[in-house]
Amino acid sequence: MLRALAFDVFGTVVDWRSSVIAELTEFGREHGVDVDWARFADDWRAGYVPAMDRVRRGELPWTRLDDLHRMRLVELLTAAGVSAAEPEIDALNRVWHRLDPWPDAVAGLTRLKERFVITTLSNGNVSLLTNMAKHGGLPWDCVLSAEIFGHYKPDREVYLGCARILDVAPDELMLVAAHPSDLRAAREAGLRTGYVHRPLEQGPDRTVPRPDDDEFDVMATDFLDLADKL
Amino acid sequence: MLRALAFDVFGTVVDWRSSVIAELTEFGREHGVDVDWARFADDWRAGYVPAMDRVRRGELPWTRLDDLHRMRLVELLTAAGVSAAEPEIDALNRVWHRLDPWPDAVAGLTRLKERFVITTLSNGNVSLLTNMAKHGGLPWDCVLSAEIFGHYKPDREVYLGCARILDVAPDELMLVAAHPSDLRAAREAGLRTGYVHRPLEQGPDRTVPRPDDDEFDVMATDFLDLADKL
Repeated sequence: MLRALAFDVFGTVVDWRSSVIAELTEFGREHGVDVDWARFADDWRAGYVPAMDRVRRGELPWTRLDDLHRMRLVELLTAAGVSAAEPEIDALNRVWHRLDPWPDAVAGLTRLKERFVITTLSNGNVSLLTNMAKHGGLPWDCVLSAEIFGHYKPDREVYLGCARILDVAPDELMLVAAHPSDLRAAREAGLRTGYVHRPLEQGPDRTVPRPDDDEFDVMATDFLDLADKL
Repeated sequence: MLRALAFDVFGTVVDWRSSVIAELTEFGREHGVDVDWARFADDWRAGYVPAMDRVRRGELPWTRLDDLHRMRLVELLTAAGVSAAEPEIDALNRVWHRLDPWPDAVAGLTRLKERFVITTLSNGNVSLLTNMAKHGGLPWDCVLSAEIFGHYKPDREVYLGCARILDVAPDELMLVAAHPSDLRAAREAGLRTGYVHRPLEQGPDRTVPRPDDDEFDVMATDFLDLADKL
């Protein structure tokens, strides 16, 4: 019996790209600099996997996503020739705490919460996820993160740690994500899988391929559709 | 500046004693046994500190509160001559997941949540606290527990771990509790302290002494009074 749903967050629950571009554009206006902020946002996000992989391989000690984001942000600002004071960089880096939910997210989660325990299961740190939930009104039952398990997804410890701390069997827990790689790792750890299609995650100009209909336990177009199907 | 409030839960947010006595009484009725269930509840709760202290001293490996509760429950049922099947004992043990909030708790937390990050900081395990929040409608921003830090309160690691994971300085975090010993340990770790008087925690026949007015940063009669004072 399915008892709990664990949600990937960036891209699955929130539209990181539009939110980050909007704040970067405002930052550029305040600093009077002209940069391709959409590309900057994509480059910022693209730094995320290699940085986490350095932690996963043990080349870096445990480092919160906030700090990985900030290292990359400083590199990109430097490369773009933009100078800013440390507190301004801190404030800008916290844009990841202020990402807006996809339009269906709050209503879908509210419905799903009636029947299941709903938690985050994100590589974002706990304070980031907590602030984001306050910002967007996300009604989580609890906030679980890679930070709690000392491992980044797709390490198996994250998926199994989530089941253990919720006191459910792996197959009583479903990972909900817009990313097949995350879902495949969850499935290998014994979790159930729910794919949600987020065609705009990478912006309007890039197509997000849809996985085969039978690859995951549930395929949904958004969280309302997921609530209907569960 | 105060940014976050961490709440002790048993006795501070929820009325464990009335909830546990009510379910034990029902359990006794179903099993046709006559036991002083109020005393049984007090004995059950009284087993909590010595059991945690065994973990704190390293005599037991990390053990979730659910499992400490269950060990004590089996001892008490045996001593009372009550026999029950394992699944029944499991179900009864989960009464601690179904404790009712004090009458002011949900309204007070809802007000406090508007200005502060509000989290649990309890020795209860994450699944216990998550289920309790669903049961009672407790609107936590996140669910933090001794389980996440691998230490039971009053170990300093719990208070400092809470500040670290919320990304606030210790003096930007207030522990709210009905128990002076918990507040004193939090203060020694550098947290601010809010005492809430819960005169009925130990039942109507026992008086809960009120600490001196100047011992803690804030003294409140309940969570609504706390919201007024903060």
